[in-house]
Amino acid sequence: MRPVFQTMLASSFILALSGMAQAEITLSGDARMGIEQSLFSDDVSFTSRARVRFDMSGETDNGLSFGARVLMNEAELAVPGEFRPWVAGRVYISGPFGMLSMGDTDSAAEAAVGSVSAISLTGLGDNHETTFYQSSVGAAWGPSVLYEYYGSGWAVFASATGEIYYNGLSQNERNLSLGGRYVIDGLTVALGVEQVSSDPRPSTLNVVASVTYDIGEFSAKAVYGQKEDWNVRYDFDPPCTPYCTNFSVTPYEHYYFSLDWERGPLAVAVFYARQPDDTNGPNSRYYGIGAAYDLGGGAGLTGGIVRENSPFAGNDQTAYDFGVTMSF
Amino acid sequence: MRPVFQTMLASSFILALSGMAQAEITLSGDARMGIEQSLFSDDVSFTSRARVRFDMSGETDNGLSFGARVLMNEAELAVPGEFRPWVAGRVYISGPFGMLSMGDTDSAAEAAVGSVSAISLTGLGDNHETTFYQSSVGAAWGPSVLYEYYGSGWAVFASATGEIYYNGLSQNERNLSLGGRYVIDGLTVALGVEQVSSDPRPSTLNVVASVTYDIGEFSAKAVYGQKEDWNVRYDFDPPCTPYCTNFSVTPYEHYYFSLDWERGPLAVAVFYARQPDDTNGPNSRYYGIGAAYDLGGGAGLTGGIVRENSPFAGNDQTAYDFGVTMSF
Amino acid sequence: MRPVFQTMLASSFILALSGMAQAEITLSGDARMGIEQSLFSDDVSFTSRARVRFDMSGETDNGLSFGARVLMNEAELAVPGEFRPWVAGRVYISGPFGMLSMGDTDSAAEAAVGSVSAISLTGLGDNHETTFYQSSVGAAWGPSVLYEYYGSGWAVFASATGEIYYNGLSQNERNLSLGGRYVIDGLTVALGVEQVSSDPRPSTLNVVASVTYDIGEFSAKAVYGQKEDWNVRYDFDPPCTPYCTNFSVTPYEHYYFSLDWERGPLAVAVFYARQPDDTNGPNSRYYGIGAAYDLGGGAGLTGGIVRENSPFAGNDQTAYDFGVTMSF
Repeated sequence: MRPVFQTMLASSFILALSGMAQAEITLSGDARMGIEQSLFSDDVSFTSRARVRFDMSGETDNGLSFGARVLMNEAELAVPGEFRPWVAGRVYISGPFGMLSMGDTDSAAEAAVGSVSAISLTGLGDNHETTFYQSSVGAAWGPSVLYEYYGSGWAVFASATGEIYYNGLSQNERNLSLGGRYVIDGLTVALGVEQVSSDPRPSTLNVVASVTYDIGEFSAKAVYGQKEDWNVRYDFDPPCTPYCTNFSVTPYEHYYFSLDWERGPLAVAVFYARQPDDTNGPNSRYYGIGAAYDLGGGAGLTGGIVRENSPFAGNDQTAYDFGVTMSF
Repeated sequence: MRPVFQTMLASSFILALSGMAQAEITLSGDARMGIEQSLFSDDVSFTSRARVRFDMSGETDNGLSFGARVLMNEAELAVPGEFRPWVAGRVYISGPFGMLSMGDTDSAAEAAVGSVSAISLTGLGDNHETTFYQSSVGAAWGPSVLYEYYGSGWAVFASATGEIYYNGLSQNERNLSLGGRYVIDGLTVALGVEQVSSDPRPSTLNVVASVTYDIGEFSAKAVYGQKEDWNVRYDFDPPCTPYCTNFSVTPYEHYYFSLDWERGPLAVAVFYARQPDDTNGPNSRYYGIGAAYDLGGGAGLTGGIVRENSPFAGNDQTAYDFGVTMSF
Repeated sequence: MRPVFQTMLASSFILALSGMAQAEITLSGDARMGIEQSLFSDDVSFTSRARVRFDMSGETDNGLSFGARVLMNEAELAVPGEFRPWVAGRVYISGPFGMLSMGDTDSAAEAAVGSVSAISLTGLGDNHETTFYQSSVGAAWGPSVLYEYYGSGWAVFASATGEIYYNGLSQNERNLSLGGRYVIDGLTVALGVEQVSSDPRPSTLNVVASVTYDIGEFSAKAVYGQKEDWNVRYDFDPPCTPYCTNFSVTPYEHYYFSLDWERGPLAVAVFYARQPDDTNGPNSRYYGIGAAYDLGGGAGLTGGIVRENSPFAGNDQTAYDFGVTMSF
């Protein structure tokens, strides 16, 4: 017979926050507040956000580490006026074999190559970020999976989203990605490749490489990527009866560069980026500069400016923000 | 005049996690990651989930216990690609009179009789679970209410959802449930009844009973249920002018059986179930087998297979999953 | 090269709950359970709610306080049957210059003047609350901003929502509010003004003032407000070609009164209110009485009754609730 109180506590209930080594939950958080003018809007408005992170971890009897992270994001603009939060989760297990994660993970290419630096309060459109195509957000078919192995000075990555086995009865999308990184002195080189296969076509191949060099107070990073979209083209003219299926390949180059400088509490970053998929027309370029000043205790002042150069006349735009960042 | 900081802290604010005995908040969590092939899909896909639980409790001056549990579920499939979480809450107060809970509670029949055992990573459709009709999920009219009283070797349960008093101006649904359980040596017998009354009809009556027997490393459980739907039938033929209202009763039997075996870190469970409401046609049977291996520290390996035998040719299906479970 | 585990921990990760003075996360919560009959419904139903609050705080090197509060609300009626929670956040920084908050904040008028008292389990429609028009809920254009400065016996407030600079390309709404409060002995006087400017019109001006007097076990508070809606009226008759734009002003008075009495564990409150915007017709009056009894340890018994007197015959309504409140 269960005692009264036990009906409230599930059998899997393990007390946390009590100093037990084998299962632990740690909370952390971050917040920001300030003003911004975003791209695609000349309006200046206020902006704020607060988030709480839950890191849960444990260790098996034979020494494997495991855990999960849950990120709770106060809603902000997710659904305006509704305070509906985003909650993203990631589960992992790690040991001598490496680390395996599922949920809200990066692709292998993103984990290996990453993005160049930029400093701003809100991201200002995040156009400094390298474009990767294996997304865990919007994945109706399940979570993203990432495998990582770290050696001495090198690391390899493999990731996937979508269905492992697909029986042809429903729409399908399968993403695969590989990546690697090598470090020697202050120099880091990385390579990543992503393939997104849809059924029906198109599919996308994205190859990215980066070089990072750290010297004293400076750090420079360059990323070069080549993306190819394979599209289906139907031809109904003879001798195609009823039709022929041909593929066309559209290649895009995308590249990014940043320079960081840090002295004491001050950090400055500049970037230049050309994105492969432009919401404001092809071949848009982005220039950015930003600075952060550490106030101590987890707080800082942060601001950034991003300029978009559009190939279409009159479409150039500027975004900027400024405010206080906090971490807890 | 309020000091500056007090504007940030509501008057009901009581410091928790600081060793005060009378009000406490405890965190726990669980997570899982693996692969699955669900019923109704031949695709094999990844699956992961992370959840955090908040258990808050206190004690009144005269010794009554009270508290609340909030469960935050990283979204997974709730809204694909949107990371919208589920958050379920339950509030309770308990004392010599028993325990009263509101929110996301079971019905009395479910609390008394429960379900047979099954082991799998994701539930694989949860067809081993006894079908109960008083649901707290989907209750537009408010939370579920459960009363529990535990004696020495016995327990009684009563529950309700829906409106206490109904004035006839709007659609209405009222659910009532009773249950009881008696334990002697390794034998547990339980009985539960649920009534769902809608206005207009139909209404549903569900009577369920279970026997559980524990002997050494084995545990066997059987559940038998009989459900009756009372539907309205309109008759427009003479002498029914304008029409006659008759009721028809459709009875369904549902039954479930499971056998558990546990030795050291290994647990195995098999089940057989016939559900009363079949999404894949009437009289579908489900067979399942699953095993879990405890890795220590809160982690384990878990997998299961479920086979559905449909009375319609070609509709038989198999689901399986395998992965790592974690509790924190 | 990053060690394995660091990939799981963001760079902004600061351990909390570990006694570090400079960054702290504190949890608290509240819950309630009971029965209610709301206005606009003669049905009596169950009601429950559980919430968890995260208060994060830190201090910069030069002594400024900063922090954020995130409130997670188990969904209850937000989206029936979906357990979708509300999560509201507020970020602040404070120092000798006062306190600046963004997110889910009050308007300056609300922070200065506030509402009269009422006691009930669920709010019963919250018709005792002073009507303020600068809302942070529903603000598609960003968070609310509140500035507070507290002197010795006085306080001033300023707040805004909407766009700081508006370029005329999109719909816009800008809310500004000012408030002040002065305390001498048991007497508090407060004044607040709000302006809501929409483009296109109408705009709203709301001026509110309050007097609060505390004497022994009693506290009385009165709030008087005058609201003016400025609406556009188009005139197409000659000599208006193509049309003339005129403004019409519609003034509304709203007032509220409450009396509180508290002795030992018992608190009683009565209120009278006339709201400016009546969902049940203009000039509706609300009368309420409620009581709370402190059970100790954070729990209490609470109940209230509200009567609405409508100017339309047959539209009078009564709401009541009763239950247990908990704070953790």
